[in-house]
Amino acid sequence: MNNNEFVCRELNLRQTASFLKKHDNYIILTHASPDGDTLGSAYALYYGLKEIGKIASVICPDLIPGKYGYFARETDHVPDDENATIVTVDVADKRLLGSLCELFGERVDLSIDHHISNTSFAKNLYLDANASATAESIYELLDEMKVNINTITAKALYTGIATDTGCFKYSNVTAKTHIIAAALYEFDIKADEINRIMFDTKSRKLLELERMVLDTAEYHFDNRCIVLAVTAEMQKKTGCSGPDLEGIAVISRSVEGVLAGVTIKQTNDEEFKISLRTYEPLNAAKICKALGGGGHNAAAGATVHGNLESVKNQVLQSIKECMEEIDAGTCTAE
Amino acid sequence: MNNNEFVCRELNLRQTASFLKKHDNYIILTHASPDGDTLGSAYALYYGLKEIGKIASVICPDLIPGKYGYFARETDHVPDDENATIVTVDVADKRLLGSLCELFGERVDLSIDHHISNTSFAKNLYLDANASATAESIYELLDEMKVNINTITAKALYTGIATDTGCFKYSNVTAKTHIIAAALYEFDIKADEINRIMFDTKSRKLLELERMVLDTAEYHFDNRCIVLAVTAEMQKKTGCSGPDLEGIAVISRSVEGVLAGVTIKQTNDEEFKISLRTYEPLNAAKICKALGGGGHNAAAGATVHGNLESVKNQVLQSIKECMEEIDAGTCTAE
Repeated sequence: MNNNEFVCRELNLRQTASFLKKHDNYIILTHASPDGDTLGSAYALYYGLKEIGKIASVICPDLIPGKYGYFARETDHVPDDENATIVTVDVADKRLLGSLCELFGERVDLSIDHHISNTSFAKNLYLDANASATAESIYELLDEMKVNINTITAKALYTGIATDTGCFKYSNVTAKTHIIAAALYEFDIKADEINRIMFDTKSRKLLELERMVLDTAEYHFDNRCIVLAVTAEMQKKTGCSGPDLEGIAVISRSVEGVLAGVTIKQTNDEEFKISLRTYEPLNAAKICKALGGGGHNAAAGATVHGNLESVKNQVLQSIKECMEEIDAGTCTAE
Repeated sequence: MNNNEFVCRELNLRQTASFLKKHDNYIILTHASPDGDTLGSAYALYYGLKEIGKIASVICPDLIPGKYGYFARETDHVPDDENATIVTVDVADKRLLGSLCELFGERVDLSIDHHISNTSFAKNLYLDANASATAESIYELLDEMKVNINTITAKALYTGIATDTGCFKYSNVTAKTHIIAAALYEFDIKADEINRIMFDTKSRKLLELERMVLDTAEYHFDNRCIVLAVTAEMQKKTGCSGPDLEGIAVISRSVEGVLAGVTIKQTNDEEFKISLRTYEPLNAAKICKALGGGGHNAAAGATVHGNLESVKNQVLQSIKECMEEIDAGTCTAE
């Protein structure tokens, strides 16, 4: 919802390119808990704007993980004054600016995004919901602006696209995604090295956590549901926290025959965060709504209170109803 | 080595396309322990030849895993007589025909391959060592032959390319790989479903085996080497064998900071198969050669006799010498 005083103007590709050429003194903002797409988009835009003589700066609300160091470098300092042009990339809502929301949330000049859920919080919006990643749009914008792309820009763009598509695995990939990837391969991007860092590198502590979590695996409903638990003790013992834990839910959805993958992460003494991954006809959002949470059809979450056993039982009860609908042939994926 | 009585003739793309148009009654052979590329290539070629009115058959030396059922269908029966044209796809050496080697090994009319190590065992060879997958070459051949591609052909081709590149992750990917993928996306291939089957589906027994294997993880040489063990007992307990075990070596190479990932699989009472994955400057082939095995710079293997402890010590001793060279600054990756 847009509570700003202005009306958000939707721009097309040409208009956005012309906006970027006309303005200067850019402050480019990423979303909090930055990922490959928001960072890749921000830096590619940064390098592109520098290429045409603009002054620009990238600001991330959180620390940028070291693994992005091959393209995320020190940028200019742009004074935050009336001459600054504020641009967000891959940010669907001003609240996702995290610690920067208060300072910039109401004054974003241009939002470049691919989330259909974008809340039109900026004065101008370039939204391509068919783009697999915001980086895909940045590529097209730089192309439209006839800006020279160089190797580091290509690396940033490739990173954005690869990370948001699970390396071209997911349903958001289109023919265009591959055509842009092919164009980026014309530069010496060493995509295999990027992919190794992004997809095939696990910390030792995470491997240790995975071992512990696999020990907790429980199967229910004729093996159509797997439950994995990540207790506070495991997190403490291994030193894994927050972002480290994101990969665990992926395990739960990869087991053959499983329709519901449940990950129960302890977040406090009597508080657990449920991550649910489902396949049709099960609907994760529907199940999590019953638990006071929400999300997408295939991936949703909820926060549930109690001890591990009682939380598990609440989740299983909620899934049970849907499983019974499947068995009775009355389940719909809506 | 080619011990045949004929000289292998190397064809270019145009000549190979013309060969395929000229002949008929095709028996298309895959390699043993079939993977996505040999099967995708064989079936795409099959569907393409059918499209131009040829009679053709696909024969695989081993059972085709059910997961390829979305493109691997029943083919024609082509009598194995003097009129048959024998074509192999993705087969680098006649011995890789396995159970079909004796019958067909000496009489292959055309070999279509992308392995630089191809032993020129066929009468005619189309070899593109720059192709990420043989399926890439099949796509180009069908295109050169102006054969209509349909959805099932596109699915087979996509499967070959995706599986041989780790879904566009590895260093064998080129701009051309992505351009072909883009062309295949013009068909309703449902690539995300293919990728889910090929990359994100694990059997419950494999998950159980992984749990057991992670329990055996040992680190050596300042955490630069991880050793994982797969005992006969684990294989028996979980029911995992042969192809199931291939993913385990992948775990060993994904740990942050690890230069040498060792997987020790028990193959018999006092016999273990070593899979070694290395990063530069370590050289897997060199280390495995010292153990009586061999392979590539980054992935090699050996068979070592003894009990688990003694085998582990032999491997570690062999790695130790290279680690010491690294520490002394005298290690070269050759």
